[in-house]
Amino acid sequence: MRRFRLAMAQINTTVGDLEGNTSKIMHYIDEAKALGADLVSFPELAITGYPPEDLLFKPQFISDNLHKLDEIVAHAKDISAVVGFVDRQGDIHNAAAVIHDGRLVGIYHKCYLPNYGVFDEDRYFQAGSDGPVFVINGVKIGVNICEDIWHAAGPMVAQRDAGAEVIVNINSSPYHQGKKAFREKMIATRASDNGLIISYTNLVGGQDELVFDGNSMVFNQRGELITQGSQFQEELIVVDLDAEDVFRYRLHDPRLRKERGHVRLGEMEAKVIMVSERGPRTSRPPLPERRPIIYGFPGEVYAALVLGTRDYVSKNGFKKVLIGLSGGIDSTIVAVIAADALGPENVVGVSMPSRYSSEGSITDAQILAKGLGIRLLTIPIEEAFKASLHTLSEAFKGAEPNVAEENLQARIRANIIMSLSNKFGWLVLTTGNKSEMATGYCTLFGDMAGGFAVIKDVPKTLVYKLAQYRNTLKPKDVIPRSVIEKEPTAELKPNQRDVDTLPPYPVLDPILKAYVEEDRNFEQIVDMGFDEETVKRVILMVDRNEYKRRQSPPGIKITQRAFGRDRRLPIVNRYWGF
Amino acid sequence: MRRFRLAMAQINTTVGDLEGNTSKIMHYIDEAKALGADLVSFPELAITGYPPEDLLFKPQFISDNLHKLDEIVAHAKDISAVVGFVDRQGDIHNAAAVIHDGRLVGIYHKCYLPNYGVFDEDRYFQAGSDGPVFVINGVKIGVNICEDIWHAAGPMVAQRDAGAEVIVNINSSPYHQGKKAFREKMIATRASDNGLIISYTNLVGGQDELVFDGNSMVFNQRGELITQGSQFQEELIVVDLDAEDVFRYRLHDPRLRKERGHVRLGEMEAKVIMVSERGPRTSRPPLPERRPIIYGFPGEVYAALVLGTRDYVSKNGFKKVLIGLSGGIDSTIVAVIAADALGPENVVGVSMPSRYSSEGSITDAQILAKGLGIRLLTIPIEEAFKASLHTLSEAFKGAEPNVAEENLQARIRANIIMSLSNKFGWLVLTTGNKSEMATGYCTLFGDMAGGFAVIKDVPKTLVYKLAQYRNTLKPKDVIPRSVIEKEPTAELKPNQRDVDTLPPYPVLDPILKAYVEEDRNFEQIVDMGFDEETVKRVILMVDRNEYKRRQSPPGIKITQRAFGRDRRLPIVNRYWGF
Repeated sequence: MRRFRLAMAQINTTVGDLEGNTSKIMHYIDEAKALGADLVSFPELAITGYPPEDLLFKPQFISDNLHKLDEIVAHAKDISAVVGFVDRQGDIHNAAAVIHDGRLVGIYHKCYLPNYGVFDEDRYFQAGSDGPVFVINGVKIGVNICEDIWHAAGPMVAQRDAGAEVIVNINSSPYHQGKKAFREKMIATRASDNGLIISYTNLVGGQDELVFDGNSMVFNQRGELITQGSQFQEELIVVDLDAEDVFRYRLHDPRLRKERGHVRLGEMEAKVIMVSERGPRTSRPPLPERRPIIYGFPGEVYAALVLGTRDYVSKNGFKKVLIGLSGGIDSTIVAVIAADALGPENVVGVSMPSRYSSEGSITDAQILAKGLGIRLLTIPIEEAFKASLHTLSEAFKGAEPNVAEENLQARIRANIIMSLSNKFGWLVLTTGNKSEMATGYCTLFGDMAGGFAVIKDVPKTLVYKLAQYRNTLKPKDVIPRSVIEKEPTAELKPNQRDVDTLPPYPVLDPILKAYVEEDRNFEQIVDMGFDEETVKRVILMVDRNEYKRRQSPPGIKITQRAFGRDRRLPIVNRYWGF
Repeated sequence: MRRFRLAMAQINTTVGDLEGNTSKIMHYIDEAKALGADLVSFPELAITGYPPEDLLFKPQFISDNLHKLDEIVAHAKDISAVVGFVDRQGDIHNAAAVIHDGRLVGIYHKCYLPNYGVFDEDRYFQAGSDGPVFVINGVKIGVNICEDIWHAAGPMVAQRDAGAEVIVNINSSPYHQGKKAFREKMIATRASDNGLIISYTNLVGGQDELVFDGNSMVFNQRGELITQGSQFQEELIVVDLDAEDVFRYRLHDPRLRKERGHVRLGEMEAKVIMVSERGPRTSRPPLPERRPIIYGFPGEVYAALVLGTRDYVSKNGFKKVLIGLSGGIDSTIVAVIAADALGPENVVGVSMPSRYSSEGSITDAQILAKGLGIRLLTIPIEEAFKASLHTLSEAFKGAEPNVAEENLQARIRANIIMSLSNKFGWLVLTTGNKSEMATGYCTLFGDMAGGFAVIKDVPKTLVYKLAQYRNTLKPKDVIPRSVIEKEPTAELKPNQRDVDTLPPYPVLDPILKAYVEEDRNFEQIVDMGFDEETVKRVILMVDRNEYKRRQSPPGIKITQRAFGRDRRLPIVNRYWGF
């Protein structure tokens, strides 16, 4: 037995909060030490928060982060730690500090810099090419960062050949639906392919459009999951590993048996660095029982939205939020998410009925507010609508009614809601879903007006699933059945229904997924079994409404590809592929 | 004499308009041929337009662009051409096709991919490592692309050693103030350092937030400018070069004398490819006289704004624009730019006076509209303002007046202006300047509401310079003196002045430039001679208003660093460096 007690501090950092992040790191170093851990690992760029984006261009920001690292090093007595920070050696690097007993014993530079999807790391960092292995308390540990482990021939291979038994991989990996299974499969494969233990420490928390889901994991040399952290929750996960077991396992595999010490593989170099000659500790406190919180679908989407909302609101310094409640499913689910994220006492709803609002819409908003325990204001828009129509009557003389009169109502509501926001300091949550954002079925400066678009990346059909899921939680059935069952309508003119403008959502959503998230073209989507005219219409709606999305508030990414940093299309664009 | 007639087609492409761009390329091939050119060069990614952004993730888009290249190749009989396109060989490349007499004789792959500022080329392209030299009509020509030439040790060095006498460098280089001089110095240095002729063909036209300024250039082996294209205007520039002169010049420089044919320099390889054995043509038509249009400062900024506005409006399929005219300098300059870009008959102004509007503001808007020859609507906001205040009176009971009542007026104006837009199909131009965008001295969903923010990147002090400059052009003095001389005010409450909230603009603007464009920190800006409290206040205003900028319409980049793709800061951000 060569036991090694590893702690993974899955913490919720805040971008730019060097002071706060450092305090939190020190706190968890103390916690891990109290639990007898040999080493505690923190997420990628834990000191700065992730992603710091163009803060990285400020030289003082880099210096300040280096000073914080010094403080952490000095603090980490009698334990080892792996801490993500920004290193500066000529250029800057996405780096991991390896700390042992108050000393900085090594620095690892991330070798593979993601520059796709939401990531722009080539914009900032130089890549590293060394993969050192640290001998700590008798165990050989290879450190690397996030993307490095996604590459089968990455630094881990050199580290393995240099004798690494345990890989400490630190991450800031954002959530999207299905990513958990994808990550597990990848890490299991890397662990069993290389015959070593992999610990995967992930960030948790919301940052602008991203939510990091935590769910740190450890896989053994057989590719078996031996522990994991909760999803969407800060947590210290401590686990006992047996390095001797790895050593013995590898003796039986001729490919893995050789241990070469200093290794060169192409441009990659792995050195073995002796950090502590001491063997494993002999006595340690017992580990507390843990039961990680792991969600199913659609529970994990719901949890992502709750955490993303809570962090965006609180990290921006707000306490209360304001939501326009139409009685429809979208504003209802946003209100429920907000109440779950912030407490019902911090959520204010405002009902703004018009001449076209149905009785049902008004009462559904009231029933929801009551069931949820949130405050509800009612401010009818008729007077302002009439005055605005009169104001415009001269200019509109002779023109047919069109979308202008519909949008005017949405924009009067925006004025009311933003006035309340400016008066009382409440952050406005908007309620548009991904199907609307994709097709432009929303009013710019109207229902799109606000600070944070909670369900911006949630297709309408998934909104219904979330509502049904939420009704199974406590307080149960908080979403009135009538809200789930009524036909979708914007109620901006008499007898208006979404299907007058859009294909039915069960048709629309798969077309949107294929076009927006999977880059399928017109022919391929038609081949999936959809009507040609419908597909053309949807593609044109998506392309022509890029300008609206460019002015949308940020919202939480929960799919493979969200609108925002994840999808960068020109506004001026004459291509649609048919 | 080994004369070579080179044509540079500085064309205005449209992103995604494969058909239109291809027709334009063919048209200029014909023009160049009629003028007896040996070779005609087109901008970087001329077939797709630049930058195509995530259109590059659509496989069909790449295939369609390759089909267009085939058409161009077949069309280019009896001439050579260098045409920017997207190549697909496994991965995709930012590429230049070298065409001769109806055949594709070579493909160059861009070696240096910019991934900074507004550029994300690592997101899309693989880098090349070959720098072939083509022997065309007796002259050795090295082809490379944009960024390649900014690197002193780039592919051009291998091409030079392989014997290149002329470099055809194709570009899509966006404009910012001062870039012309910067480019000239760089190209002159590269030309004289390597003892060869460099032709620099640039794109012209507006694309979303970027304006490409054309101003293609040719420098000789002594680093002397021998011809240039106009700024901000499509043009075919034709020039006669003497390759023999380059050859003789290099014989006298021992470093440049050696001509090695096939060259390897590190990872870079340069081969010589014989394209045509024919010598230079002996008779050619005389070249037409040309007088390139080159602007001084601030004329070039003004021209950039005019072209950027014209292209954004027309490439998005709009004909007319609508502008809220307050009588202030910002909305005035935007109206004048719009009239210069689109013709006064396509510009509609709307004056929306309130109880706080001064008589002078109203008459200044009228004088401007008359002088400019644009239509002016007058729609007072009092009725809608009163109705909105009454609507909110219950909710606001007991609260002190604050910014809510001010913003409400701006948002009522937004509703009027967007209603006119929706009713008549006019694109709304917003009128906020960079000083306002930086400090958040503007109303989200109010004066920020619209489709295109013309002077978003123009600091207030520069707005004044542009107004003075414009008054020297015809029709002269179109901007009333009182507009230039009055004190800046938002007129949203009695006796309001900008200086009640902001430092005076001559103090504010240099602080903003230092902080936003130059990444200077608090201490460095104080060291420039500014008051500590003022600097702190400005930095906090900039950082706290990121959320507003994220929802701004796009606008034209004219400085070193614009808000938008160029500057990517998190909204949730607790760092300000003091």
